[in-house]
Amino acid sequence: MKFISSKSNQYIKFIRQLRQRKEREKSGKFYIEGLRLIGEALRTDFPIESIIYNSDLLISDFGWGAIEDGKKKGIDIIKVTKDVFQTFALKEGPQGIAAVGFQKWTNIKALHNLEGLWIALDNVQDPGNLGTIMRSLDGVGGKGMILLGNCTDVYHPTSVRSSTGALFSLIIGKTNLRELDEWKSKGGVPFIGTVCGGETNYRKYNFPEDIVLIMGSEQKGLPKELLEMCEGLVTIPMTGSVDSLNLACAASIVLFEIYAKR
Amino acid sequence: MKFISSKSNQYIKFIRQLRQRKEREKSGKFYIEGLRLIGEALRTDFPIESIIYNSDLLISDFGWGAIEDGKKKGIDIIKVTKDVFQTFALKEGPQGIAAVGFQKWTNIKALHNLEGLWIALDNVQDPGNLGTIMRSLDGVGGKGMILLGNCTDVYHPTSVRSSTGALFSLIIGKTNLRELDEWKSKGGVPFIGTVCGGETNYRKYNFPEDIVLIMGSEQKGLPKELLEMCEGLVTIPMTGSVDSLNLACAASIVLFEIYAKR
Repeated sequence: MKFISSKSNQYIKFIRQLRQRKEREKSGKFYIEGLRLIGEALRTDFPIESIIYNSDLLISDFGWGAIEDGKKKGIDIIKVTKDVFQTFALKEGPQGIAAVGFQKWTNIKALHNLEGLWIALDNVQDPGNLGTIMRSLDGVGGKGMILLGNCTDVYHPTSVRSSTGALFSLIIGKTNLRELDEWKSKGGVPFIGTVCGGETNYRKYNFPEDIVLIMGSEQKGLPKELLEMCEGLVTIPMTGSVDSLNLACAASIVLFEIYAKR
Repeated sequence: MKFISSKSNQYIKFIRQLRQRKEREKSGKFYIEGLRLIGEALRTDFPIESIIYNSDLLISDFGWGAIEDGKKKGIDIIKVTKDVFQTFALKEGPQGIAAVGFQKWTNIKALHNLEGLWIALDNVQDPGNLGTIMRSLDGVGGKGMILLGNCTDVYHPTSVRSSTGALFSLIIGKTNLRELDEWKSKGGVPFIGTVCGGETNYRKYNFPEDIVLIMGSEQKGLPKELLEMCEGLVTIPMTGSVDSLNLACAASIVLFEIYAKR
């Protein structure tokens, strides 16, 4: 077990830099904070480089159990001072436990039999939406999430936190429209898009067992190329003065409709 | 029309202070930013004190139309320099138009005939959730939202923004459990609570026409006193590794179930 008491220690600096997408992409790592997330990462055997804790802040037995569990798994355990912990903690009143994980990306070309329920998102901008969609997708037993275009980073701290650990259970892939099209022609799994103001009510649609649900960005919805790849398009009918729903809410409504019909 | 070029002008300082709940409560006012929200506030005749704009940043015809509309309605129109605008703008790349609105609270005791679909929220902590729930509630033609306990502020800038203007259409009230109980015994509108891991599947519940849907906080769910006031409790069945949904997603799933059945 290591002990770090300096805020300018190289690894502590690195942990702070993981707030930046550039650093996350360069290192292929990301930051995890809090008991629940770390517990879930350990439970699912998600690849973890290190667990960092401060014994003044960490008062939970569950947290101490997580450290023991981490040791057994051969994860680096690093003890730090309260001052040091607070330089990278994102939460006010931190629980005194954090971790550095290895990003896990699945090459979608390697997925030949795409069974079950998937979601593909195009150009999603808000990391909170991304995390919340993973949470709902996992809640309906979904398999994974495919990111298209310039989506925000699934390993952004807000996305990780909002996922409440679903990130560790789901298969995550990213690709572009060309690759997706090639792959679709091989795999043959139906794509169902969600659009605003379309004709087909999502409640009346007969969703197949294996499906990729496609959703566009918060601002622009689905681009033409993606619309053309969809076997079906569904719409959530609305009334009132607003003209659209929050993306994560819309995704959840359709996901739980599919789930309820099974 | 006024023109302000000083960042330390009294009113400009006040606008910046509206970021704090204390200042919002003291003044009974709140901050609104962006074309869409201001357009919606004007369309619904929501009480507005002033519209503040900068002509370098404001490039939208819709925005100039809003200023004309505001003038006709007797709203103070204040032109400011770009530097001044950027001291209070919350959005990166602001659209150059903001407003100060008057908070509108409805005394729930004054609502005798509570018809239609309402939501009551207890101790909700995240202003983004509050705004997103208003957006979905308006999307199903809901009447209003009642805040219980120590909810976060519905007029927090993040709540206002996330509501995408639904805040201006809905009736908003706040009360405590004792008042709510008294009022319920007079009004007789059924309360339906949502809980985790309960027995009644929300898909199988026969929701009445007039209803107050009750939801608890992100962390703690519904307190005992509120559970006891509910005629029915519904649950969203889930699978996977996560044990709950994001509050706004859960609210949206139940709201759109009620809406679809009508």
